[in-house]
Amino acid sequence: MQKIGKQTVKFDVPPTISATASIVGPKEADGPLASYFDQCLDDEFWGEKSWEKAESKIIKETVNMAIAKSGIPSEKIDYCFAGDLLNQCISSSFGLRELNIPFLGIFGACSTFVEALCLASVFLESGAGEHAICAASSHFCSAEKQFRFPLELGNQRPPTSQWTVTGAGCAVVSKNGYGPYITHITPGKIIDMGIKDANNMGAAMAPAALDTLITHFKDTGRNPSYYDAIFTGDLGYIGKDILIEMSESKGYQIKSNYNDCGVMIFNKEKQDTHSGGSGCACCGSVFSGYLFKMLQQKKYKKILLIATGALTNSTTSQQGESIPGIAHAVAIEL
Amino acid sequence: MQKIGKQTVKFDVPPTISATASIVGPKEADGPLASYFDQCLDDEFWGEKSWEKAESKIIKETVNMAIAKSGIPSEKIDYCFAGDLLNQCISSSFGLRELNIPFLGIFGACSTFVEALCLASVFLESGAGEHAICAASSHFCSAEKQFRFPLELGNQRPPTSQWTVTGAGCAVVSKNGYGPYITHITPGKIIDMGIKDANNMGAAMAPAALDTLITHFKDTGRNPSYYDAIFTGDLGYIGKDILIEMSESKGYQIKSNYNDCGVMIFNKEKQDTHSGGSGCACCGSVFSGYLFKMLQQKKYKKILLIATGALTNSTTSQQGESIPGIAHAVAIEL
Repeated sequence: MQKIGKQTVKFDVPPTISATASIVGPKEADGPLASYFDQCLDDEFWGEKSWEKAESKIIKETVNMAIAKSGIPSEKIDYCFAGDLLNQCISSSFGLRELNIPFLGIFGACSTFVEALCLASVFLESGAGEHAICAASSHFCSAEKQFRFPLELGNQRPPTSQWTVTGAGCAVVSKNGYGPYITHITPGKIIDMGIKDANNMGAAMAPAALDTLITHFKDTGRNPSYYDAIFTGDLGYIGKDILIEMSESKGYQIKSNYNDCGVMIFNKEKQDTHSGGSGCACCGSVFSGYLFKMLQQKKYKKILLIATGALTNSTTSQQGESIPGIAHAVAIEL
Repeated sequence: MQKIGKQTVKFDVPPTISATASIVGPKEADGPLASYFDQCLDDEFWGEKSWEKAESKIIKETVNMAIAKSGIPSEKIDYCFAGDLLNQCISSSFGLRELNIPFLGIFGACSTFVEALCLASVFLESGAGEHAICAASSHFCSAEKQFRFPLELGNQRPPTSQWTVTGAGCAVVSKNGYGPYITHITPGKIIDMGIKDANNMGAAMAPAALDTLITHFKDTGRNPSYYDAIFTGDLGYIGKDILIEMSESKGYQIKSNYNDCGVMIFNKEKQDTHSGGSGCACCGSVFSGYLFKMLQQKKYKKILLIATGALTNSTTSQQGESIPGIAHAVAIEL
């Protein structure tokens, strides 16, 4: 591999995504992408006694499903890169504690799934292993309870708020294979433009997406039209509009081939999620469920996936802090 | 690089640790290693209004100091791998938000510092960059507040409990240099032996340390006496004794050249920390402050550093869960 430009790594022998799996909750099952997910749950508990335990079960079963679909024996998998939104990333560490695969916990908030793809790609192309798991989860109920208010209170959500996706996505990445390939990664910097509204994550994260997007184009010499499609992870409606406008002001026209997983996963008219979906599982399940199948069916041949994260929590909001954002990008090509 | 055995990566051109820095709090300043740290603070707030903000300032200043000591311009540093114990890793993301270096957030609980060294080593030897920052922090007051009880309550601590180190450690790792070198890494699996006592982290983490230790020996064909010294991150007195006993039962004698950073950082008689120190900064500051200088002075030529983490939080304890442990190892040699 080689580093090109300021922040991008180009792979000489690009790692391949061997298989993906996705499990989502009941609200996602009512959305437009329902038929693409491997499993849709009837309720948020899935037989468990708490939302946290349910989220752990979701990521566990998603990872097991991805391994089974890949056909790779789990003892041949060298690394697991995983994370989630819960305090101390408990859904991934508890869900995956029986996995028996070296575990490298990561936290990139909602950018976690793409951060995992970045790390796995470098590890595999470098010769540190043959196969790696990349996984991330989130859960509407556990996230609301932890970041905002107890659901039982029935608090009103402002129009800028987004709906945390319940589910998990998992990709098995392999050193060798038949594609789709991860050809480039552009890990992002933390960007904090001073947004303090914890109910407007799209606005807080859009500047980070812009920074990584433009850096990726400059580093690679590519422009937006090189890609069949560009996807952000969970900017939602507001963040998506901001990104389009800011990109245009920088001379990059992305409007015609850009969409956001948080916009795609729910139906705007029928499902009242306000500014769209969010959470680690938003990008994770939309990629693992929908985008990977589009690549397999050659409906897309070149995509750029940029997952954004808001590196914040309820304590920092209460202490008057702004919201640092981050965005990591991977170019996936046939 | 090449993968050897089950979980170990051996570097053909081992990355070098170019510089380290450490800042610690007032209790650590009263301990036996005080003279080795770059800076000792007079109080836990360091002029900030909250413990969280103080912890962010500690990791920020530690990273800046390490960069300054390395002599490497910060724009030449390709990656920052960092994490901490606070919910959503806010001390590292807020502390390092102005760093302007691609940021890959990690969470390995108290194993975070060594997890960062593992990731950075692979990234640099692979050609993905020239220099990387590895940093981790913890803070007694923010950790007690978050994981246990408000400090103001003055709760009694059981004899098995450990004292979270206030401070941060940072290492600048470079692709090329004059050593000390990271020659091998052994990332660990999650091991959960069913320990449920949240006030006995040493016992919960010792089985993970054992698993990684023995795997490292088997993978490399080395035995304990190969190393001048073996250090765990924060098993404390109880965990250290358990690890010595369990290693012996598996045929590995580590008693004569093994110690634990949590045992080393506080004075057992004069500083009543019960079972010793803990936290991301325990291993981070003891390595960055003390062990790195011992390597530079050639008092140690070969060490094995194994940082352990308890992948738990207060919610999982309240929900009756046991405590999954993890341990990552790096071999550092001249």
